[in-house]
Amino acid sequence: MYLAKIYVTYKPSILDPQGEVIKSALKRLDYAGVAQVSQGKYFEVKLDAKNIDAATAEVESFTDALLINQNTETYHFDLSLVSDEVNA
Amino acid sequence: MYLAKIYVTYKPSILDPQGEVIKSALKRLDYAGVAQVSQGKYFEVKLDAKNIDAATAEVESFTDALLINQNTETYHFDLSLVSDEVNA
Repeated sequence: MYLAKIYVTYKPSILDPQGEVIKSALKRLDYAGVAQVSQGKYFEVKLDAKNIDAATAEVESFTDALLINQNTETYHFDLSLVSDEVNA
Repeated sequence: MYLAKIYVTYKPSILDPQGEVIKSALKRLDYAGVAQVSQGKYFEVKLDAKNIDAATAEVESFTDALLINQNTETYHFDLSLVSDEVNA
């Protein structure tokens, strides 16, 4: 079984109001060193696949189809081989 | 300047209804191999700090204070040294 760790972020040209709000809040809390904040999404998906190429193709397919908004978001992911145990 | 990549996930004992919904949706879309899905949050924070120890302490402090709900969520992060450029 493979574990895909998928990191979704806004495309560089897209405004990230949530990140700006967090940055303002951190400044108010006296974290003066903070220069930039962006918030994205993080998915961990366990999946069965024949091999790592099949797993890669499947992750790309369902991430494009369901997990991201292709107009505003981009993503990258890591794949690793893990034990078959599923923690519910 | 340091770049902190912060990964926030639910604690193992916490129900993740959003992950379950995504898993069901993927099954309906014929991604039969998907065994488990969990959704978390992902932050990229650029900050100024004297050294990596100071940066680590600052990230731990503001993540505990603002970015996570300590009752239900846990996190880990990576720190790397980056150029001073900030992309708005």
